[in-house]
Amino acid sequence: MPAAAADAIAAVCRADRFDIAEIGVAAEASGNPVTPLVQALRAAVEEPTAQWVHFATTTQDVLDTALMLLAVRAGEPLLQCLRVAADACAELADRHRDTLAVARTLGQQAVPTTFGLKATTWLSGLDAAGRRLQDVLRRRAAVQLGGAAGTLAGYGTAGPAVMSALARGLGLCDPGLPWHTDRQRVLEIADAVAAIGPAAAKIATDVVSMASSEVDELREGGDHRGGSSVMPNKGNPVHCVLIRAGAMQMPGLVATLHHAAVHENERAAGAWHAEWESLRSLISLAGGVADRGSRLVADLDVDPARMRANLEASGGEVMAEALVQRLRPLLGHDGSSNAVQRCLADARQRGVTFREAVAADEQVRSVLEAADVDEVFEPRNWLGSAPEFIDRALLAHEQAWP
Amino acid sequence: MPAAAADAIAAVCRADRFDIAEIGVAAEASGNPVTPLVQALRAAVEEPTAQWVHFATTTQDVLDTALMLLAVRAGEPLLQCLRVAADACAELADRHRDTLAVARTLGQQAVPTTFGLKATTWLSGLDAAGRRLQDVLRRRAAVQLGGAAGTLAGYGTAGPAVMSALARGLGLCDPGLPWHTDRQRVLEIADAVAAIGPAAAKIATDVVSMASSEVDELREGGDHRGGSSVMPNKGNPVHCVLIRAGAMQMPGLVATLHHAAVHENERAAGAWHAEWESLRSLISLAGGVADRGSRLVADLDVDPARMRANLEASGGEVMAEALVQRLRPLLGHDGSSNAVQRCLADARQRGVTFREAVAADEQVRSVLEAADVDEVFEPRNWLGSAPEFIDRALLAHEQAWP
Amino acid sequence: MPAAAADAIAAVCRADRFDIAEIGVAAEASGNPVTPLVQALRAAVEEPTAQWVHFATTTQDVLDTALMLLAVRAGEPLLQCLRVAADACAELADRHRDTLAVARTLGQQAVPTTFGLKATTWLSGLDAAGRRLQDVLRRRAAVQLGGAAGTLAGYGTAGPAVMSALARGLGLCDPGLPWHTDRQRVLEIADAVAAIGPAAAKIATDVVSMASSEVDELREGGDHRGGSSVMPNKGNPVHCVLIRAGAMQMPGLVATLHHAAVHENERAAGAWHAEWESLRSLISLAGGVADRGSRLVADLDVDPARMRANLEASGGEVMAEALVQRLRPLLGHDGSSNAVQRCLADARQRGVTFREAVAADEQVRSVLEAADVDEVFEPRNWLGSAPEFIDRALLAHEQAWP
Amino acid sequence: MPAAAADAIAAVCRADRFDIAEIGVAAEASGNPVTPLVQALRAAVEEPTAQWVHFATTTQDVLDTALMLLAVRAGEPLLQCLRVAADACAELADRHRDTLAVARTLGQQAVPTTFGLKATTWLSGLDAAGRRLQDVLRRRAAVQLGGAAGTLAGYGTAGPAVMSALARGLGLCDPGLPWHTDRQRVLEIADAVAAIGPAAAKIATDVVSMASSEVDELREGGDHRGGSSVMPNKGNPVHCVLIRAGAMQMPGLVATLHHAAVHENERAAGAWHAEWESLRSLISLAGGVADRGSRLVADLDVDPARMRANLEASGGEVMAEALVQRLRPLLGHDGSSNAVQRCLADARQRGVTFREAVAADEQVRSVLEAADVDEVFEPRNWLGSAPEFIDRALLAHEQAWP
Repeated sequence: MPAAAADAIAAVCRADRFDIAEIGVAAEASGNPVTPLVQALRAAVEEPTAQWVHFATTTQDVLDTALMLLAVRAGEPLLQCLRVAADACAELADRHRDTLAVARTLGQQAVPTTFGLKATTWLSGLDAAGRRLQDVLRRRAAVQLGGAAGTLAGYGTAGPAVMSALARGLGLCDPGLPWHTDRQRVLEIADAVAAIGPAAAKIATDVVSMASSEVDELREGGDHRGGSSVMPNKGNPVHCVLIRAGAMQMPGLVATLHHAAVHENERAAGAWHAEWESLRSLISLAGGVADRGSRLVADLDVDPARMRANLEASGGEVMAEALVQRLRPLLGHDGSSNAVQRCLADARQRGVTFREAVAADEQVRSVLEAADVDEVFEPRNWLGSAPEFIDRALLAHEQAWP
Repeated sequence: MPAAAADAIAAVCRADRFDIAEIGVAAEASGNPVTPLVQALRAAVEEPTAQWVHFATTTQDVLDTALMLLAVRAGEPLLQCLRVAADACAELADRHRDTLAVARTLGQQAVPTTFGLKATTWLSGLDAAGRRLQDVLRRRAAVQLGGAAGTLAGYGTAGPAVMSALARGLGLCDPGLPWHTDRQRVLEIADAVAAIGPAAAKIATDVVSMASSEVDELREGGDHRGGSSVMPNKGNPVHCVLIRAGAMQMPGLVATLHHAAVHENERAAGAWHAEWESLRSLISLAGGVADRGSRLVADLDVDPARMRANLEASGGEVMAEALVQRLRPLLGHDGSSNAVQRCLADARQRGVTFREAVAADEQVRSVLEAADVDEVFEPRNWLGSAPEFIDRALLAHEQAWP
Repeated sequence: MPAAAADAIAAVCRADRFDIAEIGVAAEASGNPVTPLVQALRAAVEEPTAQWVHFATTTQDVLDTALMLLAVRAGEPLLQCLRVAADACAELADRHRDTLAVARTLGQQAVPTTFGLKATTWLSGLDAAGRRLQDVLRRRAAVQLGGAAGTLAGYGTAGPAVMSALARGLGLCDPGLPWHTDRQRVLEIADAVAAIGPAAAKIATDVVSMASSEVDELREGGDHRGGSSVMPNKGNPVHCVLIRAGAMQMPGLVATLHHAAVHENERAAGAWHAEWESLRSLISLAGGVADRGSRLVADLDVDPARMRANLEASGGEVMAEALVQRLRPLLGHDGSSNAVQRCLADARQRGVTFREAVAADEQVRSVLEAADVDEVFEPRNWLGSAPEFIDRALLAHEQAWP
Repeated sequence: MPAAAADAIAAVCRADRFDIAEIGVAAEASGNPVTPLVQALRAAVEEPTAQWVHFATTTQDVLDTALMLLAVRAGEPLLQCLRVAADACAELADRHRDTLAVARTLGQQAVPTTFGLKATTWLSGLDAAGRRLQDVLRRRAAVQLGGAAGTLAGYGTAGPAVMSALARGLGLCDPGLPWHTDRQRVLEIADAVAAIGPAAAKIATDVVSMASSEVDELREGGDHRGGSSVMPNKGNPVHCVLIRAGAMQMPGLVATLHHAAVHENERAAGAWHAEWESLRSLISLAGGVADRGSRLVADLDVDPARMRANLEASGGEVMAEALVQRLRPLLGHDGSSNAVQRCLADARQRGVTFREAVAADEQVRSVLEAADVDEVFEPRNWLGSAPEFIDRALLAHEQAWP
């Protein structure tokens, strides 16, 4: 191919020269937008240059490579949003490493924890999703070049060299061989993009729960305030709602892409075409949840006093595990369980707190001093390795983002 | 915890001591099988040993770690099947590197290729899926240990040390911190397992197509012959059918696991429980398709003569791309296209082959000698980098399986 | 076919005569269990009777008809569970038609409602799902009989008559013509079964939320109490958790069945086989959520006092909509909004309730008397058509279950 | 509400008065487009009219009702396309009721059938999907009106009357009671829309198979001819490819809608929002596949001669079922099977056709005359009830579209 022809073609390869809507309409007849685009490109140069347009390549080479470029380019702001969100989580984890809060399992208050540790879980999810996407884009986003059916016949034996040069030119991986009907790369990228959904939705779901009127420990901040169209009293968690909505639409798209990953013979009659919109929607939704996730966490209002109040609202019941463990060597497994159950029942019956019932229980007091009871009911004594886990997550976070 | 207690508990931890059906029935009331299992274990040792059973840990620690063990253990035969299948593909690719066949795109005969290159695509899909699963199991299959809500409060500050020891004991990764509500690990494993579906279904779908009565290039071998219950003439591609059926059920499970990856607060009220059956089914289906895939490829009957006959059936139309490229420098882009279209129409109208029409076309013959036409219509001259791609895939295969 | 042969065959058609496990193992080779079953049946009668076994029919006729029978038979207890659950919701709706509660939108307290109206929403979901499943099973669950490829060639021209007789004998619909590759019936049934998931999960999700420690308005009753393996203080909502887990697995199966509904030519190579496990799992999960749903609602503990307390916890903010509407004709749209916003801010700033702030607001008091303010802040005055909606739902419920 | 206010508001309710892009941007802050739309409407009228804009209703009322209107309005052209496609199938079924073709099961030639019967299967799928959608839109597409949380408090006790009037005005069903958190209607509509996918994809998949180079019985007609960008010999089945691609994206959206059908409390924090895009995409994809499906079938080129040639290509093997049935009363089940297997083997070994081998088989000829063999091998004698099934499907088609 003469260098002058290449230069002439490159000179007209400018998006603003082409009417995308017109190409879109024409795509209907050929079943893809490349055919009309190639025609328009050929018309934009003259013979004999025109014969070198789309030389020895095929529609799928163009579209597959374009999808990969799109994934890599969209991946940059997406990863940036994830990183901002993760940094904000790290900040929360560090700042609230001593902020007592109650852990909730299956909707029920369980045991003490810290808000810092809650934020650590958010952090580790975001870091894992971010690391995975970085890694997969770096390793797997490759040019596709196979020609009509994967032999690159039109290039003689120069195919691999052209493939390498194209990869260098576009900043994508050189796949070594065509992958037009082996969609493992597409799957690996799609799966990694999709994993951003749950990482962000975990945070949004926790915030919806913790921002509910009855819990009221967190509130969305920032300059928006999710007003209701009719209820002026409300401050709706808009970021959370839209993150959850976005994340909820992603698994269906992942499933579509897994179905569409079976490409028969040398070009799939439908499965390939089903990838286009699905992968773009998936990336777009991931971008939305990552962007909103970064703003949600960065602007989050935290109410440590309310966290403390909620922790104390059970009258000490959330310390039951601590009490059982303290009593077990003294009363045995069954003895300690029975004692705790008796105190729980006693508290409910007499309308006193669990802690009061424990302090008044003869069997318990036969083995524990008042100071021991105080010690057991101090949440700070029952945080285990929470601070250590926070340190570890912060260290891992520093290493996750090069 | 006294060493004697540990030994006593370990001594009763034998699956055959427990009635799994009974535990299953009892699981209905607690919502999980760990509660009745722990009760049975406690009953199997005596106080004071009983108090050390399930010490400072929680149901989710047991189930999450069990799921990871299951993934790793099931992963071994699964990877072995994949490797056998990939080895068989490599064998086919190597043996049939010169076996001419026709490439089919969108159901239509397109250009020449080799059966070896077709097998190479199967190979690269299996290798990619296998490498991915090996990698993810090695890096991400970790113990879960968090205690009631992720602080490991019951171990004081010894939590991380216990976690490491547990990981070593079970041959799983040490995650550094609990991941009970960060399901990125589960997702990453599930996604990798699910990618086996399309890798195997690609092969099965190709074989169904190439084993169809009208194509008849491949046939399932082995000692089964998929007899019809009523049509003695038939030899149904049973392996293919069941591989496709298995693979078709996997994307829905992946989607379920992506939905179920959002775990609110410190334990999800349903999302976690939805993982159990979904992940097990996914692994089980992957095992089925990998096993059948290995047998399908290893026993495949290949008919090179029929491949050659099908390649020739179009009377040279599959060489149209080659002809266009040969004519283009001589007649220009439009000129060469017009000449080829004219010959196609002429052939159909006169009932001769495309090749005959080309040989008789005045314009073509004004620029090409008879020997040139013969050269253009020789499929072996239009295989491009097929042999090189086979070599590359075989080399990559050797490196994919340590 | 001689009547004596029919009788002889019918006599051996008893499930206990066959080794299901053995048939299952043999199914592996043929790709379906019918081939070995037919062999076993033939072996169980003698020639010449054996030739009439499976006469002129095919594997798919047997399996498709069996799936339909299974759907109808499983449908009975499933619908019974739904009805019990719906009856229990109707009972709750009727009993709690005057039980004040707070409505929550996007996790936030919104306006007053009644617990009866909440139960009405549960009721209408269950009734709709139940009506739909009754209707679809009655209209669409049909025998499949097409013979080898849908012509019923083996029956001469008697095919339609045999089909009708089979339908009568099995209590299924007569489809008029074979549907082996038209899966609209399967889809319609699967979709209806799947709709049970959200109907039940809506209830379970509401109960998890309303049973959370901080809301505490509902509690699972019955003889189980979802104890934690380590936290004696907890009463986990086990029914809800498992209903949600079951419902979360159903959409993936629906999607699989929609994918598997495309059956190529006269028998699908995989799509058909993918239906078997998917439809059975879907029905089984629906049965589980319906059964647990019926127990959840029937045994539910309701705490009207706590509902009232939560309604009042906002100090009247949940009456903001009522206040705006009352003020709007007096102050205009903007004027009334501004007044309410001012009072909300004032309340938060001064640490008084919204109601107190309103009662002290000069502009408000310039247009409303103290008695007017009392009237506005009475939740019972702001229930709109709640009682009417309850009556309508109860009436519809009576008509939904013949 | 004063009639003059209503008139004034109605007068400004014109889509061209509002900047949709601007409303879209503003929707980001409130999480929905209704809030900025209501603000724009209020700004477009003056006080005191403004206070009646969006009176006593809420965002969800507007959006849910809009979605229902959209479904009904999109349903009209969608159903029209389906009907055109079904009419074209009926035409094919009628015209080709005697066009012999081969039935294919699991990719293999099986027994004779007619192309008319194949078209009948397409027809019955389209008719079923069309009937279902008509029915569900008529019965279930309803206005939603509940106000802030389902009580319609703002209308006093006039709520039900307003709801009825709104339903009449918009031509939607009156639901009787609000359904904002009971999504059974949405599901029922979505499921019915989704069922169009497989109905159309069944046709497209059959055509791809029957238009493949080696089968070549059908070809896409019309004014497009799916040219390849590089292979002038190809005529790609573009309609089929895009129908299959569209249909492949629908199950994932159905699954999303099933997940999103669980709406907690009185307004879901995400699940509701996930419906918007999913339902619109689903309807849009259904419209695409129905439109293309109608063009595909209406323009389809059928090649009866090639169908006949393919039927005969097996040398009579596709008549094996007929032969077995003819021999069975004469030789018993095993005897007839053995004879046929022997002839199949003999034909393959000697390189003669199955029919020739049968005619030469001594055991067969000991029970069948030459004329009997001719009779058995005449495909027209082995069509069973194919004509009757075509008649039934045509009759049902007439009744399916009022």
